[in-house]
Amino acid sequence: MTTQKLISEIKRKQSFLCIGLDVDLNKIPKHLLDEEDPIFAFNKAIIDATHHLTVAYKPNTAFYEAYGIKGWKALEKTITYINTNYPEVFTIADAKRGDIGNTSTMYAKAFFEDLGFDAVTVAPYMGKDSVEPFLKFSEKHTILLALTSNEGAYDFQTKIIDGKEVYKTVLETSKSYQNSEQLMYVVGATKAEYLTEIRAIIPHSFLLVPGVGAQGGSLNDVCKYGMTEQVGLLVNSSRGIIYAANDETFASKAATKASNLQAQMQSILKDASILN
Amino acid sequence: MTTQKLISEIKRKQSFLCIGLDVDLNKIPKHLLDEEDPIFAFNKAIIDATHHLTVAYKPNTAFYEAYGIKGWKALEKTITYINTNYPEVFTIADAKRGDIGNTSTMYAKAFFEDLGFDAVTVAPYMGKDSVEPFLKFSEKHTILLALTSNEGAYDFQTKIIDGKEVYKTVLETSKSYQNSEQLMYVVGATKAEYLTEIRAIIPHSFLLVPGVGAQGGSLNDVCKYGMTEQVGLLVNSSRGIIYAANDETFASKAATKASNLQAQMQSILKDASILN
Repeated sequence: MTTQKLISEIKRKQSFLCIGLDVDLNKIPKHLLDEEDPIFAFNKAIIDATHHLTVAYKPNTAFYEAYGIKGWKALEKTITYINTNYPEVFTIADAKRGDIGNTSTMYAKAFFEDLGFDAVTVAPYMGKDSVEPFLKFSEKHTILLALTSNEGAYDFQTKIIDGKEVYKTVLETSKSYQNSEQLMYVVGATKAEYLTEIRAIIPHSFLLVPGVGAQGGSLNDVCKYGMTEQVGLLVNSSRGIIYAANDETFASKAATKASNLQAQMQSILKDASILN
Repeated sequence: MTTQKLISEIKRKQSFLCIGLDVDLNKIPKHLLDEEDPIFAFNKAIIDATHHLTVAYKPNTAFYEAYGIKGWKALEKTITYINTNYPEVFTIADAKRGDIGNTSTMYAKAFFEDLGFDAVTVAPYMGKDSVEPFLKFSEKHTILLALTSNEGAYDFQTKIIDGKEVYKTVLETSKSYQNSEQLMYVVGATKAEYLTEIRAIIPHSFLLVPGVGAQGGSLNDVCKYGMTEQVGLLVNSSRGIIYAANDETFASKAATKASNLQAQMQSILKDASILN
């Protein structure tokens, strides 16, 4: 999917919500455990109930890998289900990969071609030749970890290199990568106060923002400091939506939570004069 | 596997070789493509021919994920085959994972419990709470990326934080993590000149050293600057061994290559008075 198409979907749906499909068999409604594929059954119900409220889905691959082949099958079925039934939705494999050249190419093929995701999250530690193989795929997006929402972000990401934080060095360096226009960045909502300085470096790039809700980040702060004229934000919520209830009403309760966020987003988009 | 057991296996086999099982269907002998599971058939033959010469196997998970469910099955069969037939061999999932707390726990379970690997490689960018979940598993090892063998390592890893390179900050910071005695570190053989300074920070930890052979690193230099009294090194070779030939002699040719490296290692261990 092109960035332009993503922006037009945001305007059409009046939403820049991304729903994280982080499925934990210990947290889903008990009645689904009788299904042949409980993870897929859960995702399918959530997707059918929320696709009109969200512009993106983001399965975190760890949750699928944890269940081995069964998990991998559920991931394949989930992405195929979205691409077949709701092709207008942007899909992100939250995989946080990164390896040397030919290995990164293998990962890129796996997520972009075999599975058919629009985007994949990538860790920057190994530098240029670990990121550029992902950028070679047209109409696909590489979402680089910049400033993450967890406490450990302060271990290295905010440390100073040549008078500048590591995450800013990552942002600036990545701008010189080939096809860097296909880069997006992860910036945690728990660190919204950093967004003004981030926007000074990457004024137009899309940011994937986790940490609103369960982790305590504020949607208003994120938008105040991070929104661009073309929106430039995908705000993710996982647990706050998908585990809104764990009985037979789980999908409709998830839709209610997603709808609340969509309504807040619609109002923010109107206030920013992005919508009429 | 405990570190002590790994050291005693190194002494018994007179080898600190790790063989990288990075299986690419375009590179394996054509006759294997008729097998039901060509990747596993290739690995099984390589393992049967080399297990007495190597102390570790390291499948890079990217190569398996690139083939979807088939690849994941081949990875499961490979690790199960090693654990069943050659339980004395140390196994490393070269996955370069790293995510926030609960997600890292999911990854740790997937690799340590479900698949049964002894170790997994982890990226440090997200800091303490992304690494410590892996360290909670006893007799399991977390191999943190420190200084990698690729060109992109100079993008961030060698940049200076407070008068010290980023990779040294990673080494020092990680020493304060809970159960840090279960940490090992990736240091590329292409950067052997850095090993003296690395050993000043982590004098005893095991290093996983890729980049000897195809990438141009020197085994002698790595040992000169990186070896400890308890060896402290696992030197990896992937392509140089597993793709030694691509006809029906591939496994025996791989064994010859592995045997050459083992002989060099034996001689180095004797010179260092680690073996009698």
